[in-house]
Amino acid sequence: MLSVAELKNMIREIPDWPKPGVSFKDITTLLKDGEAWKAAVTHMASLCWKYKPDVVVAPEARGFIIASALAYALGAGCVPIRKKGKLPSETIRGEYQLEYGSDVLELHRDAFEPGTRVLVVDDVLATGGTISATIDLVRQLGGEVVAVAFLIELTYLPGREKLTGYEVVSAIQY
Amino acid sequence: MLSVAELKNMIREIPDWPKPGVSFKDITTLLKDGEAWKAAVTHMASLCWKYKPDVVVAPEARGFIIASALAYALGAGCVPIRKKGKLPSETIRGEYQLEYGSDVLELHRDAFEPGTRVLVVDDVLATGGTISATIDLVRQLGGEVVAVAFLIELTYLPGREKLTGYEVVSAIQY
Repeated sequence: MLSVAELKNMIREIPDWPKPGVSFKDITTLLKDGEAWKAAVTHMASLCWKYKPDVVVAPEARGFIIASALAYALGAGCVPIRKKGKLPSETIRGEYQLEYGSDVLELHRDAFEPGTRVLVVDDVLATGGTISATIDLVRQLGGEVVAVAFLIELTYLPGREKLTGYEVVSAIQY
Repeated sequence: MLSVAELKNMIREIPDWPKPGVSFKDITTLLKDGEAWKAAVTHMASLCWKYKPDVVVAPEARGFIIASALAYALGAGCVPIRKKGKLPSETIRGEYQLEYGSDVLELHRDAFEPGTRVLVVDDVLATGGTISATIDLVRQLGGEVVAVAFLIELTYLPGREKLTGYEVVSAIQY
């Protein structure tokens, strides 16, 4: 099984994307390698299994890639949070701030029962805006956020400060 | 392990969505159940393992949910195809027709080497438009499409006709 250092080496950094000054962490170069993807999911599952989640919840679209395999590995369900108008049944909505303007996330009102143990995940913890909005929606439905997990954490950004009070785990740190 | 009939019963039908006359197959009611998700992925893996794919390729966003766990289960890599402007490195592009107008899909130019064994997947085979565009991109990169797999196939629509010459498998049929 590949080590965390080996997995980190497989992530590609894209300078000045999506805007000048940002070094984007491109996980597609890790994902496309079967051995690396197996190791990354296994590593995340090893960090998360003790929280005994019933469901894994993630925002679209890269979050789905992490949530789907992790839910399968943990024997949990997988619950998508989507942009406005994409979910077909009744939803609850939350607005979150982008650098310019805002966007809306939706969660099916019947996505889980109150008291459900929820693992919230995304690919990258950066400023924490999207994941905070995701947690708000989960709590509106009465979900118990047992932990918040990321494949990558950018420790030089203040994302973790926004998650005070929650168990936060990440597989790979920068 | 749940049977295919039990899995099918867990899919919710949403009448007249996204437009009048369409009965949308909502898989979120299956996904959110850990036992059902485990069975669905295991069933798809059992249909696909014989094709020995190196990578699983899927279009965003629901396709990612199927591809990610299936790739993990098969020990394959996972390659995302995205809408315009979402992938950070150099891409190839394909246009595909929607009912009104068209949309663009992109694939990283270095997503895989020529000759790679590719399993193309999506959640639902309906008219086959998106999956045909996905296959075109895979072939532009020299990928060998070893099979095309879906969680759900709507056999009353002509999607399979668009995939003549390919191995096509689906876990649940309507």
